[in-house]
Amino acid sequence: MKDLIFKIRKFIKERDWEQFHTPKNLVMALSIETAEIMEHFQWKTAEESRDLDETTFDEVKDEIGDTFVYLLRLCDELGIDPIEAANDKMLKNAEKYPIEKAKGNAKKYTKF
Amino acid sequence: MKDLIFKIRKFIKERDWEQFHTPKNLVMALSIETAEIMEHFQWKTAEESRDLDETTFDEVKDEIGDTFVYLLRLCDELGIDPIEAANDKMLKNAEKYPIEKAKGNAKKYTKF
Amino acid sequence: MKDLIFKIRKFIKERDWEQFHTPKNLVMALSIETAEIMEHFQWKTAEESRDLDETTFDEVKDEIGDTFVYLLRLCDELGIDPIEAANDKMLKNAEKYPIEKAKGNAKKYTKF
Amino acid sequence: MKDLIFKIRKFIKERDWEQFHTPKNLVMALSIETAEIMEHFQWKTAEESRDLDETTFDEVKDEIGDTFVYLLRLCDELGIDPIEAANDKMLKNAEKYPIEKAKGNAKKYTKF
Repeated sequence: MKDLIFKIRKFIKERDWEQFHTPKNLVMALSIETAEIMEHFQWKTAEESRDLDETTFDEVKDEIGDTFVYLLRLCDELGIDPIEAANDKMLKNAEKYPIEKAKGNAKKYTKF
Repeated sequence: MKDLIFKIRKFIKERDWEQFHTPKNLVMALSIETAEIMEHFQWKTAEESRDLDETTFDEVKDEIGDTFVYLLRLCDELGIDPIEAANDKMLKNAEKYPIEKAKGNAKKYTKF
Repeated sequence: MKDLIFKIRKFIKERDWEQFHTPKNLVMALSIETAEIMEHFQWKTAEESRDLDETTFDEVKDEIGDTFVYLLRLCDELGIDPIEAANDKMLKNAEKYPIEKAKGNAKKYTKF
Repeated sequence: MKDLIFKIRKFIKERDWEQFHTPKNLVMALSIETAEIMEHFQWKTAEESRDLDETTFDEVKDEIGDTFVYLLRLCDELGIDPIEAANDKMLKNAEKYPIEKAKGNAKKYTKF
């Protein structure tokens, strides 16, 4: 992951794009890229979404690539380690969603 | 990152949540989490977005944690390696945005 | 709809919020509100999404209200009439999706 | 607005697309269209976002058209009147954001 982060930094620097990469703009870009993944799934049934044809799979993989790039860019600008952020949040989620209450249902913790 | 992926899988399995984790639902969840990051930035100026107070920083970090968790979950369900997807996409982006054309501007490649 | 637009303008003016309502910020707000509608549907099956309980219905209605408010605010700032925009776009959509090609399938027009 | 709603219904019926228009799918479509508006604003400054060139204005207008179409489609499927939903929500917003507390700041009501 470190190599990837450096590669992205270099890509941006070579194009003189740091000026556009405020956290505000990067989170917009991240949200737009997730919508581009979503576009491939909007009309699919649950079952169809599990069983993509090869063309769709490749297109989805590309959009996931862009999404991950912007997530890493945003983290890099903010000084956040995404692995640490995810690990810390998982601990909080485990408290918000104790197994006995959450098992087998998709309720939000505010509705327990 | 592998540890994190396994930890997330275990978390889901313990709560019997695999039934909800179709790729279609996961990409919706991913998009919702990115909107929750965005919520912290919507009324900020570009400058303010670079200089978060401690409370906002912690809240943003939490939302980035959730976003990364769902991105990894989606990749896990689809059998996509996010690092590989990002590396592959960076190669394509380098072709779509050659330095001489892209330098210092934020035009979409379709507008070159 | 005109009454509603005026009411929203007054609401914003009274709170001295025009300063925050750049089109850039308003489109972020619009996107965040649509994600808040989406939150109610993310774990639902297609069938469940057609048959909301009363509480969920009321919450969805509220989020649709906020979404429409921001859509109207964005249009108002940009000087766009949403009815005209929709009517004009429907004409283009009819050309992009001729009945004989589009009937019964959800393909994007670029995949015909 | 009524004419527009009927026109959209006819468009969908002629293409036999009702099968795809579950509320779940429609809210995904709505969110994707808002991201397509957002795409035009992501790299713009606040000032630039107020002053679109003609081409961008026309593209934004088209995306706003699609967004409004999906918002009306979603409302139609759910049996929600968007004007009523917005009016009702404005009343709640007036209570959540009393003028004296909200004036001149963009804080969320939970942070008052």
